Amino acid sequence: MDPPTSPDDEAAAFFRAAPPFRDRDAVAASLAAFVARHRARAAAGGGGGGGPPAAAAGVVCVTSGGTTVPLEQRCVRYIDNFSSGQRGAASTEYFLKAGYAVVFVHRRGSKQPYCRFLPEDSFLDLFELGEGSEIQVPESHTTVVKTAISSYRKAIDEGLLLKLPFTTIFEYLQLLQLVSTAMNCLERHGMFYCAAAVSDFYVPWESMAKHKIQSAGGPLNMQLSQVPKMLFILRNQWAPSAFCVSFKLETDPDILIQKAEAALRKYGMNVVVANELANYKDVVVMVTSSGKTTMSRRSKEDDLEEQLIALLVKMHSDHAKQSNPEQET
Amino acid sequence: MDPPTSPDDEAAAFFRAAPPFRDRDAVAASLAAFVARHRARAAAGGGGGGGPPAAAAGVVCVTSGGTTVPLEQRCVRYIDNFSSGQRGAASTEYFLKAGYAVVFVHRRGSKQPYCRFLPEDSFLDLFELGEGSEIQVPESHTTVVKTAISSYRKAIDEGLLLKLPFTTIFEYLQLLQLVSTAMNCLERHGMFYCAAAVSDFYVPWESMAKHKIQSAGGPLNMQLSQVPKMLFILRNQWAPSAFCVSFKLETDPDILIQKAEAALRKYGMNVVVANELANYKDVVVMVTSSGKTTMSRRSKEDDLEEQLIALLVKMHSDHAKQSNPEQET
Repeated sequence: MDPPTSPDDEAAAFFRAAPPFRDRDAVAASLAAFVARHRARAAAGGGGGGGPPAAAAGVVCVTSGGTTVPLEQRCVRYIDNFSSGQRGAASTEYFLKAGYAVVFVHRRGSKQPYCRFLPEDSFLDLFELGEGSEIQVPESHTTVVKTAISSYRKAIDEGLLLKLPFTTIFEYLQLLQLVSTAMNCLERHGMFYCAAAVSDFYVPWESMAKHKIQSAGGPLNMQLSQVPKMLFILRNQWAPSAFCVSFKLETDPDILIQKAEAALRKYGMNVVVANELANYKDVVVMVTSSGKTTMSRRSKEDDLEEQLIALLVKMHSDHAKQSNPEQET
Repeated sequence: MDPPTSPDDEAAAFFRAAPPFRDRDAVAASLAAFVARHRARAAAGGGGGGGPPAAAAGVVCVTSGGTTVPLEQRCVRYIDNFSSGQRGAASTEYFLKAGYAVVFVHRRGSKQPYCRFLPEDSFLDLFELGEGSEIQVPESHTTVVKTAISSYRKAIDEGLLLKLPFTTIFEYLQLLQLVSTAMNCLERHGMFYCAAAVSDFYVPWESMAKHKIQSAGGPLNMQLSQVPKMLFILRNQWAPSAFCVSFKLETDPDILIQKAEAALRKYGMNVVVANELANYKDVVVMVTSSGKTTMSRRSKEDDLEEQLIALLVKMHSDHAKQSNPEQET
């Protein structure tokens, strides 16, 4: 008799059946260079000349935005998960401010760090030409735009921000594996902040329609499979010493906390951040093995992410000071 | 015995069951004002002082980007249609250049007119601060950015561009009804250029899950209903005298032209533009009752939309010169 399917087997089967990741070698090389550059800094306790308080600095992988599930191999239709990427983009700014190097694994087209203030429809609404045809920003927005440009330039020029885009669930999970195995050498100085909205269901590549599904055939019936729980593999194999934060989003407040606690146990996360769709910008509950902490936004001008990242940086710093279990024995 | 369901009955049932359109009154008011402003101009043969060649100018509704199908009422997951909105954004620019007033009905977050040159990930990649901390664009991009800002400003300031966003299939079809009934008074001077990628299947609102679908229940089975063919209603009821252009996208070239010809007949379109996913930026086939015209992009620097809009403007001009059938009798 076959043994019951293990998470490892499910993950292996998922990757075997996934379409090959484009630019895998180039992405792996840029990741290796990025991690190597920051490894010494992280192990020394971070910071560096003139930077922010040095104690906590390490490398964090922030995942952001929703993954898609293609319904056709030559993809016209797909299932998507709601996520603007607002949380991930804001959090990346605060991690950079705290001296972290950030691998920003984001959905193509989702919100980007330092661009959250942009008009929804057209960035051109922000600009006008002056009398000498120089590019101008209305005075009300001058400070915010100039600060954004200079902060962004600084992060890029100092090599503190590596941006890696994905669209599908296949690309996302392949990227998560690449990043976490590359960051494994950072041990306890590595952090994962998995804010992406990851699909629970997908259509395996080989059972997918090759061409656009035709509507003439009447109503459409679809059967979707469960996506393997990769956080378990991340924790147990890819980067077992890292500090791991995951998110749980629900629309029903009655089941939110119990689902967050279950995720904490099942996947061995250090923190699960529980949030409700209706008010995710205003309130989160941080669930850890030692209890729950509720955080609320202080005013409309505040980012909840500022408090959240401050506390996580502190917790990660404590985590990094502990020695690895295998080193203790 | 009940009569067989008619397209009218299906459309009415769809709208009855759809969630109410937010800001309906404000959108209807801005549409009425926009159409009234351009009605006299269109009837007089367009143009106006100092504008482009006056013969063809009218009002066109350009639809752009893909619609989503929510799978849950408090929506976390949805089915989406692939469409960057590139075609609709480029076409809007060429319609404006030809002197048209444009109602740009677009998916939130899709490509916008005059913004097509933007870097994919971060518009901040385009800017830097000069020595006096003034906003600068690298010299390689100066001309394109300045032209974009001035063309966009001109269209907005002269009241030639009305932008109306949608996300779901419910919003899109409600918006299409609002726009087309508002444009009906333009008669043959109105044009519809339906480039949006509209879902064929949806989950009726009342049969939708209220909360996020839980993954613990194992694989997911979904049954989707067919979206009523609203182009038929647009042509027959909402704006029967308008010049109507629709698009047919397929991945399988073997069925593309026959599907485009079927759409031309079934919905009474004036033109169906047939395109393949693999090369939609390079080749289209215009299908009309008098035959097929293939158009190819001349070079990488050219927009296929420039040729396409030039020919459509000519055809619309001929259409507008004919009197209405009901006026002939």
